[in-house]
Amino acid sequence: MEKLTHMNEQGRAKMVDVTEKQETVRTAHAKSCVVLSKEVYENIIQLKMKKGDVLAVAQVAGIMGAKKTADVIPMCHPLSLTGVDISFSWQECEDGQYALEIDTYVKTKGSTGVEMEALTAASICALTVYDMCKAVDKSIVIGPTYLIEKTGGKSGHFKRQEE
Amino acid sequence: MEKLTHMNEQGRAKMVDVTEKQETVRTAHAKSCVVLSKEVYENIIQLKMKKGDVLAVAQVAGIMGAKKTADVIPMCHPLSLTGVDISFSWQECEDGQYALEIDTYVKTKGSTGVEMEALTAASICALTVYDMCKAVDKSIVIGPTYLIEKTGGKSGHFKRQEE
Amino acid sequence: MEKLTHMNEQGRAKMVDVTEKQETVRTAHAKSCVVLSKEVYENIIQLKMKKGDVLAVAQVAGIMGAKKTADVIPMCHPLSLTGVDISFSWQECEDGQYALEIDTYVKTKGSTGVEMEALTAASICALTVYDMCKAVDKSIVIGPTYLIEKTGGKSGHFKRQEE
Amino acid sequence: MEKLTHMNEQGRAKMVDVTEKQETVRTAHAKSCVVLSKEVYENIIQLKMKKGDVLAVAQVAGIMGAKKTADVIPMCHPLSLTGVDISFSWQECEDGQYALEIDTYVKTKGSTGVEMEALTAASICALTVYDMCKAVDKSIVIGPTYLIEKTGGKSGHFKRQEE
Amino acid sequence: MEKLTHMNEQGRAKMVDVTEKQETVRTAHAKSCVVLSKEVYENIIQLKMKKGDVLAVAQVAGIMGAKKTADVIPMCHPLSLTGVDISFSWQECEDGQYALEIDTYVKTKGSTGVEMEALTAASICALTVYDMCKAVDKSIVIGPTYLIEKTGGKSGHFKRQEE
Amino acid sequence: MEKLTHMNEQGRAKMVDVTEKQETVRTAHAKSCVVLSKEVYENIIQLKMKKGDVLAVAQVAGIMGAKKTADVIPMCHPLSLTGVDISFSWQECEDGQYALEIDTYVKTKGSTGVEMEALTAASICALTVYDMCKAVDKSIVIGPTYLIEKTGGKSGHFKRQEE
Repeated sequence: MEKLTHMNEQGRAKMVDVTEKQETVRTAHAKSCVVLSKEVYENIIQLKMKKGDVLAVAQVAGIMGAKKTADVIPMCHPLSLTGVDISFSWQECEDGQYALEIDTYVKTKGSTGVEMEALTAASICALTVYDMCKAVDKSIVIGPTYLIEKTGGKSGHFKRQEE
Repeated sequence: MEKLTHMNEQGRAKMVDVTEKQETVRTAHAKSCVVLSKEVYENIIQLKMKKGDVLAVAQVAGIMGAKKTADVIPMCHPLSLTGVDISFSWQECEDGQYALEIDTYVKTKGSTGVEMEALTAASICALTVYDMCKAVDKSIVIGPTYLIEKTGGKSGHFKRQEE
Repeated sequence: MEKLTHMNEQGRAKMVDVTEKQETVRTAHAKSCVVLSKEVYENIIQLKMKKGDVLAVAQVAGIMGAKKTADVIPMCHPLSLTGVDISFSWQECEDGQYALEIDTYVKTKGSTGVEMEALTAASICALTVYDMCKAVDKSIVIGPTYLIEKTGGKSGHFKRQEE
Repeated sequence: MEKLTHMNEQGRAKMVDVTEKQETVRTAHAKSCVVLSKEVYENIIQLKMKKGDVLAVAQVAGIMGAKKTADVIPMCHPLSLTGVDISFSWQECEDGQYALEIDTYVKTKGSTGVEMEALTAASICALTVYDMCKAVDKSIVIGPTYLIEKTGGKSGHFKRQEE
Repeated sequence: MEKLTHMNEQGRAKMVDVTEKQETVRTAHAKSCVVLSKEVYENIIQLKMKKGDVLAVAQVAGIMGAKKTADVIPMCHPLSLTGVDISFSWQECEDGQYALEIDTYVKTKGSTGVEMEALTAASICALTVYDMCKAVDKSIVIGPTYLIEKTGGKSGHFKRQEE
Repeated sequence: MEKLTHMNEQGRAKMVDVTEKQETVRTAHAKSCVVLSKEVYENIIQLKMKKGDVLAVAQVAGIMGAKKTADVIPMCHPLSLTGVDISFSWQECEDGQYALEIDTYVKTKGSTGVEMEALTAASICALTVYDMCKAVDKSIVIGPTYLIEKTGGKSGHFKRQEE
């Protein structure tokens, strides 16, 4: 039997080894945004959407989404989250549209950071808003979605400059 | 025993009844975007990221994400998808950054549309790019994410105007 | 090689073959109940529970639970649900406690009934109420949980007599 | 751009922060019950149900259900369980029916209790009994389901009084 | 903004489009095998394994595994299975070891075949046997695992020749 | 009410209690194999399979499969993996077929070993290769699949002798 090893090593994917990383408290704060029409905004605020209370459902979806992060992001390490919180605020845009700002805060005590959990929570939360409102308007836009701040771990404190 | 019914009906959530909707072929095309630095762009293109081949992993994640849509979006109807395809293209931005454009195409034969599946695939795909690159740069931005086009179903054809 | 076949066939489990069953519209209505103290009742009604709006979260959990039925009940056939609705009502019990009645309604067009989906939705909904309130009272009781009515399929209409 | 913050803070849901809670050994013992006819009882005992050995399948379902708790209960913290055990016993009721009593015992070393895992295991186990027997009898009743005892954590020992 | 399209199209993965494929009855029969020592064999047969009744648990795991196929195999189309059955038989090998043969039978009415479901059921079933017995013997070997027969669909009947 | 306890205790399944086991670093290395025709081999190597880059997708599937182990193997304890790596090599067999060897390496810091995670990763990886190639050849064979080595925990070091 002849060994043939022409596998290209370059592109190989792996869940990198974090066994030696220290367990510390880690937090992450991410943000997403959903931009929608005045009509949709009023339907949400007045609880008139046929699928139900948009923000209540989206918040639950975001929190559950945080717990599913390692399940949907292939190279992400599984983590036992110790806290997830999501808050909403509205902005009136100059073009007459409304922006729903979604802030997610995730915490754990573990060997890897929780940036992905905060970003995934924000994304699932925003997608749920879209789902609850798409019967009224399909042109809703999600994003930008990004990390605001993280603490803990070897790479230490990160705070987005332009905020 | 006394009945007390002061439940506010307004905010109630439900998975709306689509039993009577016709089974037709339905397609959706969504788009997301990941904006990142030249350094990250070069690491991706040259397959130098420690976690592996960013676009290969992100594409698999996006396709698997499409199949998990009804699992993560609370009021979304479960559907047996018949096809999912994801393509990438790069744009060089004016500020020296690079934009990875993610296009997702989803198909089914069913009673509800696949907009959420296309949008979820695009979001999970973008989040995976972030995860694979965050060791190099945590300021990567995801989005905007939106629907480009859908066909099939009672509401018929939708095509985003500004595209 | 000698064949030894002393497997006891009696106890064997299987997902029984429903390939030949007709696809018809099927509905199920199940009920569960959560019995709790006046203190917990008031905390729920006044939205004072630390984990949030108990009924809003429980309703979302129940709907998502319906979609997970074939995932948690081993011999249950997977089904694409076309509608799930959950409603709540309160009863004041003779002993001063309060009973939250949970009614779940599930619909599909398929080869098997949706009794398990309605019962699982009711159970997950009730468990979520417990989870949201257990910091205040651990002696909350769930149940009885049972099927009220089902329609569709070869076995036809079932309606619980004592209701 | 004008900030509009009229989000009602009262109803907000969150996965409460347990980062500072101590990791201790925690146990929980819950109970559920399935009340069924003599005919169903005999079918179970004599392994005559078409779907298979009811108690064997239900026990596996309950144990797997314990591991899925944080996945189905929205505000429940994820935990790595260190042990799950489920036992059954039969009672003959005065009205000629039979009661299958389900006792679940769950253990972990962690920051939050395992009451929800024990209750979820008991509920999934009972639902599986229903599923395996519903071809014979749809009027089976599940419950009551409640916590018998818990140990560990700041709130300490709880033991249900009426047991 | 300048468009840069140097994505290599060759390696792209996709869930291929089966929208136009006909819905027909499809069956698949796969086989796996677990080779283990006489000591392990006797422990299984006499129900002496500490984790419980090996074959009962493995059978449930295999059936549930069939339902999870599209969740774990990235490019596999989701399908609503209409039947899953698993049987076991023992062979005594010439070297004194014992071979547990696992036969899985899966059925559906759909647009794609169920080969992957039958093979995944067989693999999960075999892995569960390993898990239940590994405290006694870690040198257990799984496989070969392969397709015996499939029917239905455009590619028609396949029957493995050497069987 | 009369107590009837004729439950056979022998066959009972449980997730055994590991609360008292020490948290140590644990590793496992498992192996699987996929034997396929020269035609399939060349299609894989030249990236000509319609579903995409076989090895890239299979590697991602295997890593995600490792994280799903406790979800699919009923009595397996949940664990937070700290690293997963999968490598491939090709062998040319004497009969003109080709063997793809799959090596999986899994690591954690925990109370139980990661043998099941390594074996599950290898199996899911092999199944994915089958799925990506089955349009060309349905007679592909998976296995043998077995543990090569494990370290850590009370049972200590295991190394397969015949390797």
